[in-house]
Amino acid sequence: MEKQKLLIDGERLKATIETFANFGGTKNNGVTRLSLSEEDRLAREYFQTCCEALKMSVVVDDMGNMYATLPGIEDKPPIAIGSHLDSVKKGGRFDGVLGVIAGLEIVRTLVENEIKPRIPITLVNFTNEEGARFEPSMMASGVLSGKFDKETMMQKKDKDGIIFADALREIGFTGEESNRLKEAAAFLELHIEQGPVLEHESLNIGVVDCVVGMVCYEITINGESDHAGTTPMTMRKDALFAANNFIAEARRQLDTVDEELVFTMGRMNVSPNIHTVIPNQVVFTLEARHKNPNIIKKVEDIVEALTRNCENEGCQIEAEKLWDRSTVMFNESLVDQLEQSAKELGYSHKKMASGAGHDAQFIASYIPTAMLFVPSINGKSHSEDEFTPYEDCEKGINVILDVVLELQNL
Amino acid sequence: MEKQKLLIDGERLKATIETFANFGGTKNNGVTRLSLSEEDRLAREYFQTCCEALKMSVVVDDMGNMYATLPGIEDKPPIAIGSHLDSVKKGGRFDGVLGVIAGLEIVRTLVENEIKPRIPITLVNFTNEEGARFEPSMMASGVLSGKFDKETMMQKKDKDGIIFADALREIGFTGEESNRLKEAAAFLELHIEQGPVLEHESLNIGVVDCVVGMVCYEITINGESDHAGTTPMTMRKDALFAANNFIAEARRQLDTVDEELVFTMGRMNVSPNIHTVIPNQVVFTLEARHKNPNIIKKVEDIVEALTRNCENEGCQIEAEKLWDRSTVMFNESLVDQLEQSAKELGYSHKKMASGAGHDAQFIASYIPTAMLFVPSINGKSHSEDEFTPYEDCEKGINVILDVVLELQNL
Repeated sequence: MEKQKLLIDGERLKATIETFANFGGTKNNGVTRLSLSEEDRLAREYFQTCCEALKMSVVVDDMGNMYATLPGIEDKPPIAIGSHLDSVKKGGRFDGVLGVIAGLEIVRTLVENEIKPRIPITLVNFTNEEGARFEPSMMASGVLSGKFDKETMMQKKDKDGIIFADALREIGFTGEESNRLKEAAAFLELHIEQGPVLEHESLNIGVVDCVVGMVCYEITINGESDHAGTTPMTMRKDALFAANNFIAEARRQLDTVDEELVFTMGRMNVSPNIHTVIPNQVVFTLEARHKNPNIIKKVEDIVEALTRNCENEGCQIEAEKLWDRSTVMFNESLVDQLEQSAKELGYSHKKMASGAGHDAQFIASYIPTAMLFVPSINGKSHSEDEFTPYEDCEKGINVILDVVLELQNL
Repeated sequence: MEKQKLLIDGERLKATIETFANFGGTKNNGVTRLSLSEEDRLAREYFQTCCEALKMSVVVDDMGNMYATLPGIEDKPPIAIGSHLDSVKKGGRFDGVLGVIAGLEIVRTLVENEIKPRIPITLVNFTNEEGARFEPSMMASGVLSGKFDKETMMQKKDKDGIIFADALREIGFTGEESNRLKEAAAFLELHIEQGPVLEHESLNIGVVDCVVGMVCYEITINGESDHAGTTPMTMRKDALFAANNFIAEARRQLDTVDEELVFTMGRMNVSPNIHTVIPNQVVFTLEARHKNPNIIKKVEDIVEALTRNCENEGCQIEAEKLWDRSTVMFNESLVDQLEQSAKELGYSHKKMASGAGHDAQFIASYIPTAMLFVPSINGKSHSEDEFTPYEDCEKGINVILDVVLELQNL
């Protein structure tokens, strides 16, 4: 007979989410808690207080990352659980903070059930995941995993010219490099989906097996800015018309590549942007994401061929690859365990890819890592409209708790 | 035998154009002479000095328009010749000022040939044709013709908050309402084409028979700003994709309407304009110009039907007509005389419509009016690249001179 699963306290979870939502809470139920802001400091200190109340030891590393450790019977690399407490401007009350709260509620559940872990459990709050105040996003996990240079990151400035290192010192969260998360048995991150798929398919849980790779181009089209009233159609070099051709043809071709491919022209600037002047320049981004690098390669081939082949209306078309990143596969064994736990708990679930970036994708480069998603209503995030039903948050944390217990039994 | 035509002095014309180009001259051979600026004041005072040297009487009206009159033997309504001395920022040395210089060179030619006109000749400098400092354009001719309300115009502010009436007083060009141009035998305006047609067809002269009518729409498309990485293509409401469909279909349909129709989507703003976010709003203008009001009506029907019929990608599409204006036909008899004179002078020419707006289109509502174009190299205007060969300027003025002499003989 199957043993009874240990579950977290749903009422307490709800109260914890609502408490954290007060740090930078907006009048429309959202949160503005930019990294290293006063609101971030308050949330960090509250997190520390909660952890210390559970007799966890809290340390901070040189990037301001916080680690709260519940000691294990054995002095082994810990099971790490976490995400980030910072938010974008007018963001929601779930993005990031939910993955930190997950760890907190798991430790609370263990402590109140007097379950002493065999191997330590470390809760992590990564600094500046959003990159909303200091670019780039996932800054601190990027430094931990060697993707970003620490000294370069330390000198990053916000829009008011404040330097990251100074802001970190100002809120009192500069620690020792020796405290960095160097090894762990596992890293588990619970996050909201930030997309509509789980809700659309009426599922509770997404077991994330990878963060998809992407490529981002900036396409620049140069034409001529002649007078809209005096230049016959046949004598124009209209950069907007050329951009329109490019986008239509790119869509037509990309739509046939793979149904899981997503692509977006999110930014477009038209010059001189006057209604009586033919546009002489249009600059727009085209980014595409897919798990399979061969699909991304096809996108690159299509974009690069279009600079030569599309109806250019007499304009010059150039495509510059701004950046790309490869697909990050999560640890297969952890993914299987998350899926198994979701199944045993009776929660509807599916395996899925993450289209968004997360700290877990950097940490995965040196620690066995996996992620779990819970539904985002209407797919909304980075918005005050962001919402995930508390019951789904609870279910997600129960799955993580179950895997943590499994890992303890190893 | 045909009598010898009276011609202007090409060398003096060149010197006059170059002298005026010094008032606000830029280092790239352009001109910045915003309306009622210090540069405008200097050009106005120089114009006044030149006219007074020819024993013309100079008066100013309440809108700052200048009138320099060479008396006639008979005290009759004058033949008026003119345009505007103001320019856009970093404009050229021909747009506007050429039409004022034309009048000046014509009077100089009459005076040095001791030809005393039968009816008076009045040179006009209209205030603020460009609207580059104080909107709207063609402000003063608009007030003269009753299109614009004087008191409203007087309160218009520039970007620094300076009021038109104060700026006019500041440069010392506030005159009497009684001085306004109320009646005239004719109004003739020489202007650069501001388009590529004459140069393309290797013609010296465009005899302008109308200013085309136009309609301008602002099209607003509202979708949803979801995450570019996490939202499957089938669950998007991408406002940029909808705009792309709209523009492609509008072009396809408008291209079939009439070969002389011109249409432009000159302004487009995408929100939130971030490469990782699906655009939730695109706002763009669609303006179209044609001589025939039935063609403009067809454009309106196409635009309005597309708001309902185009592939909207789940977005809402609205089209608001920002404004329209009817085609202004010029005086047939004057148009014929200009054409006849161009022919007699042996200049290559064609009848054409003006796609751009000019003071003449407002004056045409109460004075017999026509315009003459000379070629714009590469169709450039409102740019330091604006250029018209001096020989073409000379030819244009000779045509106007010839018509003025014809009108004198009436």
